[in-house]
Amino acid sequence: MTSRLTSSMFSSGDMLNVFSDQAIVQRMLDVEAALARAEAQHGVIPATAVRAICGCCDAALIDLSALMKAAGPAGNLAIPLVKQLTALVAAHDAEAAKYVHWGATSQDIIDTGLVLQLREAFRLFDADLDRLAGVLAHLAEQHRHTPMVGRTWMQHALPITFGLKAAGWLDAIVRHMDRLDGLRVRSLVLQFGGAAGTLASLGGKGLQVAATLAEELGLTLPDMPWHTQRDRVVEAATVIGMLTGTLGKMARDISLQMQTDVAEVSEPLAEGRGGSSTMPHKRNPVGCAAALTAAMRVPALVSTMLSAMVQEHERALGGWQAEWDTLPKIMQLASGALEQIRSVVSGLAVDAARMRINLDATQGQIMAEAVALALGGRIGRMQAHQAVERACYLAAGSGRHLGDVLKADPAIRAELQEVDIDKLLDPAGYTGEAEAFIERVLHTYRERDANKH
Amino acid sequence: MTSRLTSSMFSSGDMLNVFSDQAIVQRMLDVEAALARAEAQHGVIPATAVRAICGCCDAALIDLSALMKAAGPAGNLAIPLVKQLTALVAAHDAEAAKYVHWGATSQDIIDTGLVLQLREAFRLFDADLDRLAGVLAHLAEQHRHTPMVGRTWMQHALPITFGLKAAGWLDAIVRHMDRLDGLRVRSLVLQFGGAAGTLASLGGKGLQVAATLAEELGLTLPDMPWHTQRDRVVEAATVIGMLTGTLGKMARDISLQMQTDVAEVSEPLAEGRGGSSTMPHKRNPVGCAAALTAAMRVPALVSTMLSAMVQEHERALGGWQAEWDTLPKIMQLASGALEQIRSVVSGLAVDAARMRINLDATQGQIMAEAVALALGGRIGRMQAHQAVERACYLAAGSGRHLGDVLKADPAIRAELQEVDIDKLLDPAGYTGEAEAFIERVLHTYRERDANKH
Amino acid sequence: MTSRLTSSMFSSGDMLNVFSDQAIVQRMLDVEAALARAEAQHGVIPATAVRAICGCCDAALIDLSALMKAAGPAGNLAIPLVKQLTALVAAHDAEAAKYVHWGATSQDIIDTGLVLQLREAFRLFDADLDRLAGVLAHLAEQHRHTPMVGRTWMQHALPITFGLKAAGWLDAIVRHMDRLDGLRVRSLVLQFGGAAGTLASLGGKGLQVAATLAEELGLTLPDMPWHTQRDRVVEAATVIGMLTGTLGKMARDISLQMQTDVAEVSEPLAEGRGGSSTMPHKRNPVGCAAALTAAMRVPALVSTMLSAMVQEHERALGGWQAEWDTLPKIMQLASGALEQIRSVVSGLAVDAARMRINLDATQGQIMAEAVALALGGRIGRMQAHQAVERACYLAAGSGRHLGDVLKADPAIRAELQEVDIDKLLDPAGYTGEAEAFIERVLHTYRERDANKH
Amino acid sequence: MTSRLTSSMFSSGDMLNVFSDQAIVQRMLDVEAALARAEAQHGVIPATAVRAICGCCDAALIDLSALMKAAGPAGNLAIPLVKQLTALVAAHDAEAAKYVHWGATSQDIIDTGLVLQLREAFRLFDADLDRLAGVLAHLAEQHRHTPMVGRTWMQHALPITFGLKAAGWLDAIVRHMDRLDGLRVRSLVLQFGGAAGTLASLGGKGLQVAATLAEELGLTLPDMPWHTQRDRVVEAATVIGMLTGTLGKMARDISLQMQTDVAEVSEPLAEGRGGSSTMPHKRNPVGCAAALTAAMRVPALVSTMLSAMVQEHERALGGWQAEWDTLPKIMQLASGALEQIRSVVSGLAVDAARMRINLDATQGQIMAEAVALALGGRIGRMQAHQAVERACYLAAGSGRHLGDVLKADPAIRAELQEVDIDKLLDPAGYTGEAEAFIERVLHTYRERDANKH
Repeated sequence: MTSRLTSSMFSSGDMLNVFSDQAIVQRMLDVEAALARAEAQHGVIPATAVRAICGCCDAALIDLSALMKAAGPAGNLAIPLVKQLTALVAAHDAEAAKYVHWGATSQDIIDTGLVLQLREAFRLFDADLDRLAGVLAHLAEQHRHTPMVGRTWMQHALPITFGLKAAGWLDAIVRHMDRLDGLRVRSLVLQFGGAAGTLASLGGKGLQVAATLAEELGLTLPDMPWHTQRDRVVEAATVIGMLTGTLGKMARDISLQMQTDVAEVSEPLAEGRGGSSTMPHKRNPVGCAAALTAAMRVPALVSTMLSAMVQEHERALGGWQAEWDTLPKIMQLASGALEQIRSVVSGLAVDAARMRINLDATQGQIMAEAVALALGGRIGRMQAHQAVERACYLAAGSGRHLGDVLKADPAIRAELQEVDIDKLLDPAGYTGEAEAFIERVLHTYRERDANKH
Repeated sequence: MTSRLTSSMFSSGDMLNVFSDQAIVQRMLDVEAALARAEAQHGVIPATAVRAICGCCDAALIDLSALMKAAGPAGNLAIPLVKQLTALVAAHDAEAAKYVHWGATSQDIIDTGLVLQLREAFRLFDADLDRLAGVLAHLAEQHRHTPMVGRTWMQHALPITFGLKAAGWLDAIVRHMDRLDGLRVRSLVLQFGGAAGTLASLGGKGLQVAATLAEELGLTLPDMPWHTQRDRVVEAATVIGMLTGTLGKMARDISLQMQTDVAEVSEPLAEGRGGSSTMPHKRNPVGCAAALTAAMRVPALVSTMLSAMVQEHERALGGWQAEWDTLPKIMQLASGALEQIRSVVSGLAVDAARMRINLDATQGQIMAEAVALALGGRIGRMQAHQAVERACYLAAGSGRHLGDVLKADPAIRAELQEVDIDKLLDPAGYTGEAEAFIERVLHTYRERDANKH
Repeated sequence: MTSRLTSSMFSSGDMLNVFSDQAIVQRMLDVEAALARAEAQHGVIPATAVRAICGCCDAALIDLSALMKAAGPAGNLAIPLVKQLTALVAAHDAEAAKYVHWGATSQDIIDTGLVLQLREAFRLFDADLDRLAGVLAHLAEQHRHTPMVGRTWMQHALPITFGLKAAGWLDAIVRHMDRLDGLRVRSLVLQFGGAAGTLASLGGKGLQVAATLAEELGLTLPDMPWHTQRDRVVEAATVIGMLTGTLGKMARDISLQMQTDVAEVSEPLAEGRGGSSTMPHKRNPVGCAAALTAAMRVPALVSTMLSAMVQEHERALGGWQAEWDTLPKIMQLASGALEQIRSVVSGLAVDAARMRINLDATQGQIMAEAVALALGGRIGRMQAHQAVERACYLAAGSGRHLGDVLKADPAIRAELQEVDIDKLLDPAGYTGEAEAFIERVLHTYRERDANKH
Repeated sequence: MTSRLTSSMFSSGDMLNVFSDQAIVQRMLDVEAALARAEAQHGVIPATAVRAICGCCDAALIDLSALMKAAGPAGNLAIPLVKQLTALVAAHDAEAAKYVHWGATSQDIIDTGLVLQLREAFRLFDADLDRLAGVLAHLAEQHRHTPMVGRTWMQHALPITFGLKAAGWLDAIVRHMDRLDGLRVRSLVLQFGGAAGTLASLGGKGLQVAATLAEELGLTLPDMPWHTQRDRVVEAATVIGMLTGTLGKMARDISLQMQTDVAEVSEPLAEGRGGSSTMPHKRNPVGCAAALTAAMRVPALVSTMLSAMVQEHERALGGWQAEWDTLPKIMQLASGALEQIRSVVSGLAVDAARMRINLDATQGQIMAEAVALALGGRIGRMQAHQAVERACYLAAGSGRHLGDVLKADPAIRAELQEVDIDKLLDPAGYTGEAEAFIERVLHTYRERDANKH
């Protein structure tokens, strides 16, 4: 399967729009229009040409199927688009038509159009990250004292709190917000170099036009064109790629907790959501599945962006073209994952009672470290470790509670009282710095948020 | 950029159709219809239900945008499709509507639909590979005596023939045709297991229905369902991935030979093909660029297919979903690369005269090995190597022909006569087994071709 | 971390040896020795040179650190190795030293050496796959009647048997064995073309020497050299890559079943295995972790192999070199995963009692499909689905058994008797064709095995 | 091939050392020693234990092969290392041995050890990037007026200067230096959380010990542990991955310019560098090949790092382990590419005369845009484009100079004088803003450099 039906399952609707056919064309036309204005301002083209050119820079006027048909043989979209635009302008003002796309190269238009799309994409990510972070902060706060099983290697390890888990998610999301800030500075820049990156076609007015063009579009003017230096756009891929990884990690956590056998949390219920075509009892974690799908697909797409950096000379053969579908797909998959996870976390049903029950599933073994440490302070870490390890085996083998086994072991009883053992086996008393960590993460988040607004 | 505008630049039109939204839905409906027939045949559903069900299994009757909207929350396309189909059937025959999708699971429909699409995709590849191989065989034959520079590490190495280069391409293409044959056997199989792969829902008639269903669809009946054993479809990705690599290699060779500085071959000329938006003299290798783009993108998509093999239990969370867009995209990119390369090779302008001229560009140095070997037979390989190496340096540094330098070197003249040197420096006489290799490759190709037709 | 310490955690010891520094050098020397014999047989070099050359083709005589130091600037290992070998031979027989490496190119030696290593690697895989398949066949047979929860989307779905799960693993493993057979035919071929693939350096005896060399080494003679047509070795990467994916899938299944919260199976216990540095009760699934690690790393390495297929002209700049570490790493990671999974499965502790308990965890809901189908035969699939769905909600919300809810629903009781409902809710009676599927898979495995031995 | 022999071809020696077996172990021991000091300072362990523990934290005392053997079953290196360390300490001071590794988890030691390695790696990159940037700045300055062919789609496009090409390389390198600065802040942080990230084992002194430990090691204290939030280390992979892409682009440019057919630049000559085992005249671009190899391998390794971000709960099964070899390999490959490219660029032989000759290879066609623009000012861009396009065809077909064809065309002569045409066809006069761009890039570089030192 492919194309619209499935693409739309894995992207937010807004991001689909940012990279729609219509939007691709409109952003390129935005650049052509701004170029005409900038060139007229510096006397490169007649001021009288601007009106007709800008008036035709409207994607609604473009014949998209003709464009699609011509793009293959032409090698890119800009060439046939400029042809259509020139014809449109000529129909209104034959003189103005002479100055369409003056001095620019296809890649100037396509790359700058892409940068305009990225700017919109970053805005969407920003807003969605803000909202996700807010929900996570709330969750961390709300569950700062909700004890649950901490799991390592997918085995019960030690008690944690659900708030700590949420704080861990938030901590990473805040870092991604910082990265997005850095990215914006380096990526939202003009591309304008003419055929070989010298702006020779501008007859000495290249830099001035470039500066005005950047200003017109609200983009930064780079020190020089970057037609085959692709780190600016690849960085966008990597930052959004890392974000997708974090969203996948959250989805993995939640879907593991949502297993029928664990049942600690659950995706929000809704009509038509997560059912099965044949099993009436099923409630599938469809939001997590979508985020996991994205986290499985995006890394490979990022690797394509990195591979494609090896671009030949002044303009490339294959590398640049490999970016065209790849970068938007990364943005779309990440946006879909972000929307899904935000919606899952916002409506997450948290079963604190079941979390508490699961803490007891191993009959005290989850507290083995606490006992070993208490014992270790007396007989040494390694020996204590081995003594408690033996007790755990014995308990597991016989189906007894670890406390009973420990209390029955004379060597252990020589060091620890019954009451000590009982206290050591209480999960609620063994969450260490969980609360302090939550506070630290929330503090950083709130400071960031305050600075922003 | 993304979606239709750019997708269509990198796929054959036929392959776009195989994986179009319409086709995805129709292939799933084909499975639903065949299922109804098979189940009726074994008395699982009433024979009277078949007509109404099959009559509605027409993609033209389906509301694709409603489908698209419902697919996200549902988690896959089959669930809302079955809902629409059931409603359509009910409008004609309420009783028949009870038996739509009886006992099947979503993945049965989606996977078998995909297999039907793969069958069409393989047919297209088959036909296009046949045609490409024919053109390459002709090229190898035609240029079996056309000497040209053999290049290693992108440096002039030794003479080869252009026919040998073409035979190398053909040799690989024939192996891909063999792989496609093996793939067909393992991949074109039915998926039918019901919700957890047991066909429990078929009330004891599961295997019989499965056998009939496979027959109805012209697919192989597997030993058991393969919902989370994905090697069958991943193999399709790898085989087509390797084909794309070979096409990329051909594109790299041709585009290097087509450099203005080399000018040995040229892509076919056509109106609107490979021009520049600003440089009137440009003829860009757009066919090669498209194939190189595919060769840059497909490997990462194959890695996604491989990563996605780690699927949970009886049906997966993320891994299966990650295949949906990925496998069709591999097929499409490969089909585009294949179409482009076939067209490039079919119309390739070969400049044998320039090939001959380039052989002399190093003033004899391309024949250094021949001299060293002749000398090595007398003074040893290593020493001869060093002597000729010195002569090459001297020639390069002074701008003289290697022959002149060799003839002026008393140590070399002690072993070789002037006339020997002249003969050793003739590129046309130093193509070794090139012709024999071409013959062997052509023989294998022809035998294969004869067996097939 | 990197290198020996961690590499050895993720490879079988045997496979480490196949690709050790010592082995790399020895396999190249094996080729040099066979080349000397073949060339002497056809009079290309004097028969008297053979003894000295072959006598020195011993990796123990080679100074590996000198080799390592020279390889960087030389660009490959063969050049400095040939230098060392020539010096060694010269020390015994100055005349013979003249004929070391006669007419071959570095890549002939390196590639053919690699093919010899692949042959050993395939033998190891063969033997290990045989053993794994045997264990899986036993498991499938032994547990053909062991009911357990079938899980889809990581939720309880329907009953299956543990034997069916094992049969699914076996089914895939048998297909990998088939693929390995096909791979052997296409991959275990000689590489011998001289500097530009023409064997011009052999003075007309190229093909004869090639044929004898292939025979000497027990390899197939290809139609022509394949220096820059890399599908043969890439296919090895993809086939072993798919195997790794299947092993990862097995590891995922087992590690999910081994969760403390599920506890259906357990990796074998052993001293020093899977403990924690701080938690005495931990038994980590270290075998599964190693296989999952491989399944996470190998796909990307396969994509490198595919990307690297775009090799320039007669010998490549970067693409070939990118294979050197990558293909062996794939073989090693896969071998490690295979060894780990074989050991895990061989010693797997299966807790059938817990499997049975887990079937009841949802208080009958796992049988919802069965009820819906029985009901659907009367009131239609869709309506029955909705009725049972409502009952499931009600049961889940109120903590009641699904049976009780169903029996209390008059609409359902109008169609089904209490006794019918009880029967429909029995998991043991709803495993469909599980046993038949197991039989089919075992039959194919046994036939294959019988043909082989 | 694999392991030491080939690894050393693709890494700088310094970076091999940073990630050597010895160094891995020493960095982990550095953490254990600092932990003991920090814990003693806060009274968690007795002050008297510090001396013995720290005294044994020396990799030279560790039995590496025993460590290697135990690591597989243990699941990581820290567990057997702590065992060895404890035994070593016990031999000196049995009481102190009780407090080895107190309260920490394996991953605390391994991750923090890795961060210490990354710090060294970043220092090496910093120094090498500084040196590379210096060389590039010199090159850009020196060749600001050296005209050469600008190439797009691997075809002659327009004149540029070699200084502009160098400035483009420098521009990207400076951005990577900026990214490295940002990375340092986010990545060089302590990992310390105990078994499940709560530091419960520290008995209420967790945060204090963590702060002191961070200070001891010169690392930042994070808001909370990040055991399964891997964006910090993945960012290192992506930033260095992008750097590798840029180095690959430089290598591609240089190797294309170094083709025998182009001959504009050449890698430095050195004894034993870039020769062939059989062709005496060969000088292979071995430095470029190594960088291209890295640029082909690193993207896939980055994708592994991104894929591995989906880590389960509090500590992962497979994802974390997948990083162990992958991240160091990225650092090593990048370091090798950086060293190679620095050495290539430092000793680059630039043939300005040949650059000038190549500008004339198309007999004026490289100046087609200039003519079209001049004409376009009079008759419109599109029409001028077509007129010059026709002239280019005619010139190419007849082997005439474009100037002659243009002068013979009455329609063109109606708009342009002979002298205008001659002037328009002068490449030296058509480099546009090349010099200004070079200045801008140099200015940014110098400012950055001045701020730094």
